[in-house]
Amino acid sequence: MTNSGTHTPRLIITSGEPAGIGPDLCLMLANHSLPAQLVVAADPELLSQRARQMKLNINLKTFNPEDHQPARTGELIVAPLPLSQPCTPGQTDPANGQYVLDMLSYAVQGCMEGLFDGMVTGPVHKEVINNAGVPFTGHTEFLAEQTHTRKVVMMLATEGLRVALATTHLPLRDVADAITPESLEEVIRILNRDLKNKFGIAEPEVLVCGLNPHAGEGGHLGREEIEVIIPVLDKLRQEGMNLKGPLPADTLFNPNYLESADAVLAMYHDQGLPVLKFKGFGKAVNITLGLPVIRTSVDHGTALELAGSGKASPDSLLTAIDYAMQTVKG
Amino acid sequence: MTNSGTHTPRLIITSGEPAGIGPDLCLMLANHSLPAQLVVAADPELLSQRARQMKLNINLKTFNPEDHQPARTGELIVAPLPLSQPCTPGQTDPANGQYVLDMLSYAVQGCMEGLFDGMVTGPVHKEVINNAGVPFTGHTEFLAEQTHTRKVVMMLATEGLRVALATTHLPLRDVADAITPESLEEVIRILNRDLKNKFGIAEPEVLVCGLNPHAGEGGHLGREEIEVIIPVLDKLRQEGMNLKGPLPADTLFNPNYLESADAVLAMYHDQGLPVLKFKGFGKAVNITLGLPVIRTSVDHGTALELAGSGKASPDSLLTAIDYAMQTVKG
Repeated sequence: MTNSGTHTPRLIITSGEPAGIGPDLCLMLANHSLPAQLVVAADPELLSQRARQMKLNINLKTFNPEDHQPARTGELIVAPLPLSQPCTPGQTDPANGQYVLDMLSYAVQGCMEGLFDGMVTGPVHKEVINNAGVPFTGHTEFLAEQTHTRKVVMMLATEGLRVALATTHLPLRDVADAITPESLEEVIRILNRDLKNKFGIAEPEVLVCGLNPHAGEGGHLGREEIEVIIPVLDKLRQEGMNLKGPLPADTLFNPNYLESADAVLAMYHDQGLPVLKFKGFGKAVNITLGLPVIRTSVDHGTALELAGSGKASPDSLLTAIDYAMQTVKG
Repeated sequence: MTNSGTHTPRLIITSGEPAGIGPDLCLMLANHSLPAQLVVAADPELLSQRARQMKLNINLKTFNPEDHQPARTGELIVAPLPLSQPCTPGQTDPANGQYVLDMLSYAVQGCMEGLFDGMVTGPVHKEVINNAGVPFTGHTEFLAEQTHTRKVVMMLATEGLRVALATTHLPLRDVADAITPESLEEVIRILNRDLKNKFGIAEPEVLVCGLNPHAGEGGHLGREEIEVIIPVLDKLRQEGMNLKGPLPADTLFNPNYLESADAVLAMYHDQGLPVLKFKGFGKAVNITLGLPVIRTSVDHGTALELAGSGKASPDSLLTAIDYAMQTVKG
């Protein structure tokens, strides 16, 4: 898709957990002039209170779908959604769990219907949503369900490094069984396809981690490499995919390997994300591959203790918006 | 222990897998003048052949326990051990698996008897040793057995970061069950004690990772934090230990946390080592805590494809020697 000069991309930003820094970061967007129309999904009263607390003078404009103008500096366009209960910064309340989900549903439906070109999500507090009685393992899984997508892939990116995950939010003891030939093949296909289509990389090179330490060391430290990973990689290589591995996770993150690679595929959350976030802390972005909509996200949590203080940094949110704009443009 | 000016530390260096870069790196030591007597355990014939291949002119001196002089530049002191079969660089041979173990036994026994002040190990190829019919999961475990130490802790260090592991060379699917309250408590006690005694840190602060992604997120992504890790940390804190966590592994490796910390305790190999090696690649060192002897090691593998080429870097070996010398003195 090429973007004509007459169309300003419109992104919906979900402000996330109301007791966290999400609303603060959205308010800070009013100080940035970006070549996109940013629409913040939030309770306007919450934003007003938080702005007063942060001593920010911001004009909140209600979102009008007919108006495609980016907000001016000092203005924030808001798609209003009501909190169930008033919110005190730093104090989560399960009664507001549904509010967080409502804004996600609003955003993803709007993207599906073409009202928005993409969505950028602020941090949520999963425990609060679960305590509200709604099983919720993460944005990625929720958005897959909402868009009837059977399989999505979570990828984090920062300058010079992209890390996709074969499994996401699972207890560690469930990881090994969750990596089947079918699931792994599907993840690699989605990764390869989206690196081509959404990132414009003609022949993506992917470094694939082993599951076990030292990639199983020839079967002596686990057999999943031999029984699952290697056969899948061999099959996909025959179709022409450029896949290296399985490689030991503790040695592949070095310039010799990374220089030519377009992405790393880690088998699970804590195998790949500590390095990515160490390298890009504060400037990393979470991208959901495989969805029919564009979705990026901050890479940090709700930082409840900073809510309302004005001390949180909007860098990750700005990076996520930047990635979403790039992807909208093709 | 304080080191008097009259005693030069004597370290035994195990050259490791003969088909790998271990012998090459040992030969390169002859170009460095260090304030220690370095004794290389290796087959002298192998070293001679490799030196010719690398076009190095090095005088090999047979180790004499009565002589405590450091080698001069261009000299290498060798404790001779015979290969079972002649070795071609890059081609491993299970027939030489026992040779690798023999040099480790020689080194650790020499340390136990006071012949050496510490040992520094070159890279081995575990698969070769296993294929030779000897179960071998790693140096760390082997040295524990040889010294009748019930429990040791593997720690890697680089400038500004130390990462210890609660479990080491286990298939991923076995990790969760291997972390029991007893094993975790013992690991933390060893880590805390050796940070004090071997590193001279009066009140070590340790950041402890959760086992599950997001440290279990309040039980929604696994219950080991609640059932195992938190109770152990609470118990040890009551004894005065400074333990933070359990923290999510993907967020703790950032300056806010690391600045004041003396070590990170990761629950398993690929949770902690990718960051450590990414940060310190080529300059990281592996230290075994809990042993009655001082042991450090290179952090890299055998790099079979580089053996004999002269292209391998001795940086990690030099760093490991440096750490061992510091520990001998401290």
